Amino acid sequence: MKKEIPQMPPYPAPEWAVTQWFNSAPLSPDSLRGRIIVLGAFQMLCPGCVAHGLPQLQRVEQTFSREEVAVVGLHTVFEHHAAMTPVALEAFLHEYRIGFPVGVDTHTDPAGPPVTMQRYKLRGTPSLILIDRLGQVRHDAFGQEPDLALGARIAMLLAEGSGAEVAVSDQQEQPNCTIEGGCN
Amino acid sequence: MKKEIPQMPPYPAPEWAVTQWFNSAPLSPDSLRGRIIVLGAFQMLCPGCVAHGLPQLQRVEQTFSREEVAVVGLHTVFEHHAAMTPVALEAFLHEYRIGFPVGVDTHTDPAGPPVTMQRYKLRGTPSLILIDRLGQVRHDAFGQEPDLALGARIAMLLAEGSGAEVAVSDQQEQPNCTIEGGCN
Amino acid sequence: MKKEIPQMPPYPAPEWAVTQWFNSAPLSPDSLRGRIIVLGAFQMLCPGCVAHGLPQLQRVEQTFSREEVAVVGLHTVFEHHAAMTPVALEAFLHEYRIGFPVGVDTHTDPAGPPVTMQRYKLRGTPSLILIDRLGQVRHDAFGQEPDLALGARIAMLLAEGSGAEVAVSDQQEQPNCTIEGGCN
Amino acid sequence: MKKEIPQMPPYPAPEWAVTQWFNSAPLSPDSLRGRIIVLGAFQMLCPGCVAHGLPQLQRVEQTFSREEVAVVGLHTVFEHHAAMTPVALEAFLHEYRIGFPVGVDTHTDPAGPPVTMQRYKLRGTPSLILIDRLGQVRHDAFGQEPDLALGARIAMLLAEGSGAEVAVSDQQEQPNCTIEGGCN
Repeated sequence: MKKEIPQMPPYPAPEWAVTQWFNSAPLSPDSLRGRIIVLGAFQMLCPGCVAHGLPQLQRVEQTFSREEVAVVGLHTVFEHHAAMTPVALEAFLHEYRIGFPVGVDTHTDPAGPPVTMQRYKLRGTPSLILIDRLGQVRHDAFGQEPDLALGARIAMLLAEGSGAEVAVSDQQEQPNCTIEGGCN
Repeated sequence: MKKEIPQMPPYPAPEWAVTQWFNSAPLSPDSLRGRIIVLGAFQMLCPGCVAHGLPQLQRVEQTFSREEVAVVGLHTVFEHHAAMTPVALEAFLHEYRIGFPVGVDTHTDPAGPPVTMQRYKLRGTPSLILIDRLGQVRHDAFGQEPDLALGARIAMLLAEGSGAEVAVSDQQEQPNCTIEGGCN
Repeated sequence: MKKEIPQMPPYPAPEWAVTQWFNSAPLSPDSLRGRIIVLGAFQMLCPGCVAHGLPQLQRVEQTFSREEVAVVGLHTVFEHHAAMTPVALEAFLHEYRIGFPVGVDTHTDPAGPPVTMQRYKLRGTPSLILIDRLGQVRHDAFGQEPDLALGARIAMLLAEGSGAEVAVSDQQEQPNCTIEGGCN
Repeated sequence: MKKEIPQMPPYPAPEWAVTQWFNSAPLSPDSLRGRIIVLGAFQMLCPGCVAHGLPQLQRVEQTFSREEVAVVGLHTVFEHHAAMTPVALEAFLHEYRIGFPVGVDTHTDPAGPPVTMQRYKLRGTPSLILIDRLGQVRHDAFGQEPDLALGARIAMLLAEGSGAEVAVSDQQEQPNCTIEGGCN
C-alpha cells in the first residue's frame, strides 16, 4: 500500500508571468520569501479543480497561519480561452467565495499552455506546487493530493530552520459519543 | 476563520491497560519508543468512529512509513458492554478490514469509563492522541480532526530531532485536465 | 447508459420467520396488507449496510407517508453469529437512531443463511424487497440501489389502484442562487 | 419529520424563450408533448447547480427511458452576464460532459431575470420544474430536491393514464456481503 515517493531535487521557483491579479496586489516568489507558498494551478471550467483542487486550497488557507503559509492560485488556461476570460474568472471567484490571491497566467502561444505553466513544467490542472521559505520548489503534484499528505508536506517545510512550534488550526465538526451524553 | 490553538503541555504517555490485543502482540508506549504513535480511541458501535475516526486511522497508516509512525487503536467501551465484546470486536475488525493493532481497554468500574480512557482523560469517542518519539503526549482531540491538520501535526513531530527528509505517500485518485488529453 | 431491467414476475410475499422484534409489536406481510412494504435485509456489521442500506431506509421513512409505505428491517445474520446477537443489535439500533421496526431472522441451519433470507432467495446484504398493497413481491435488489430508481419504484406501486395524489416530502437542504440575494 | 407538501394547482407550461440551443434542435413544451419533462434551470457559475442540480439531471437521464422522460436544461443567467455567455456555456457543457439539451434563456431586462425564468416565476438557481404528458406544470422546486422524492414525483406522473409498467434503470454500485463470498 505504502509507496515511497522519490523526493524531487529542489530548484529555484521560476517567476510568475501574470497579466492580472485578483484579491491582491501583484505577487512574486520573491515578494513572499520567508513564507511557504502553496501554489495551485487551476482552470475555472476544470471539474476536478472545482470539486477538489480549489476547496483544498481554501482548507489550507484556514488551517495554517497566513504569516507562515501563503496560498496563491494561478489561472492556467490551456483550452476554451474564449470562455475562461478574466471577466469570467472574476465572477467565478466571487461565486465560489475564493478569497486568496489569484493570478492570470500569461498566454502567448495559441497552440500551447500559458507561460508560467510551461516554466513549472505542469502537465495539467489541478496542479499543486510547494515552495519553501528560501524560494525553492520542493514538491509538485498533478491531480488530487490527499489532505493528510499535503498537510504533512507543508508542515515539513514549516519545520525547516524553525525552532518554534507551528500553529495549526483544528476545525472540529462532528464529535460523537461523550461519556456523559451518549452519542450524537 | 483561523483559530490559534493553545499547545498542550507535554506529559509522559500513561501505560495502556489492555486485556486483549488484535492484529498484534502486546504493545506499550515504551515498546514503540522512537516512533510517533497515533492512538485512536473508538467504540465499534459509535457512528462517528465508523464514519470518520477509523477510516482516518487507515489513511494515516497508508500515508506514513510504519517504521516512523505507529497507528494503534484502543477499544474504549463505556456503554453497551454486552454488545461490544471482544468477540464482536474481532468480527468488526474483520468486516471493516482494519489491520492495525487494536487493544481492548480494561473495564473495572461498571459505572465509569475504562482504565486507559481515564488515564488519558478522554471525553468520549472518537478521540485521537499523538505521542512523540520520546513517549510524551503532545496532542489530543475529541471528535473529528481534519486530515490537513492531522497530517501537519504528525509531520511536525516527525521533524523533531530529525535531520532527514520524511517519506510521505501520495495516493493520486482523480487527475483531471491534461494538456494533451483534455479533461477526464 | 440506459439499461432495460426485466420485470420480475410477482409472487406472494413469504412469511417472515422472526424470533424477536425491535421498535414494534410482531409484524407480518399480512398485517401490513394495504401498504407498500419496503423490506431491508441487513447485518449490523456489514459495512455497505451501515454506509448505504440503512441510511436509505431512513430516508424512505422520512419521504413517504407511514400510512402508505411501511419500512421494515430484517436482521439476516449469516456470519459472525456470536458478534451480531439481539443484544448487540439493540445497542446498534439505539446508537444509529434507527426507529423503524426491525425483526431478527430465525437461524436454524449453522451452515446456511437464516430462514426468511432463504425464503426470499436473497444473495447477501444489503438487500431490498418491495411488496405491493396486495402482498406480492414486486422487486428485489442486492447491493446499493440508487435513490432515484427506488423512489420511482415505490411511487409506481403507490400509484397502482389509487386515484389519489400521493404525498411526497421534500427536504430542502442547500438552496443556492436567489435573484434577490446572490448565491449562498 | 414528515412534512405534507401541498400540491400546486397545475397550469399550462409557458413557452420557453430561448435564444440558442445546445445538444439539440429547438425544443418546446409542445414539441415534447406526450413525455414527462424534467426542466432544470441553472447558471454555469452557480455552485449549487454544479455540485447538485446538474449531476441530478444527469442521473435522471440515466434512470428513466428517454422516450418517456425528457431532461432539458435552461441557462437562466440573472447575474454576471459577461461571464456566462453562450460561448462560455458551450465550453462548460463540454467539460462537464452534459449531453442533454440546454437552452439559453432570453435576457432583455438588464435589471431583471431572463424571460422564461419570469414566466415560470422561479426564485433562483438551481430550480426544477416537472411538466406532465399533457403539458401542465405539476411541480417546481428551488434548491436541492432529494433523489428519492424526485424519483417518486417523476414516477407518479409516468403512472398517470398509463396502464403499462414503467422502465427504471438500476445502477448497482456497491454490493456488499454475499453468502458465499463474505463482504467486499
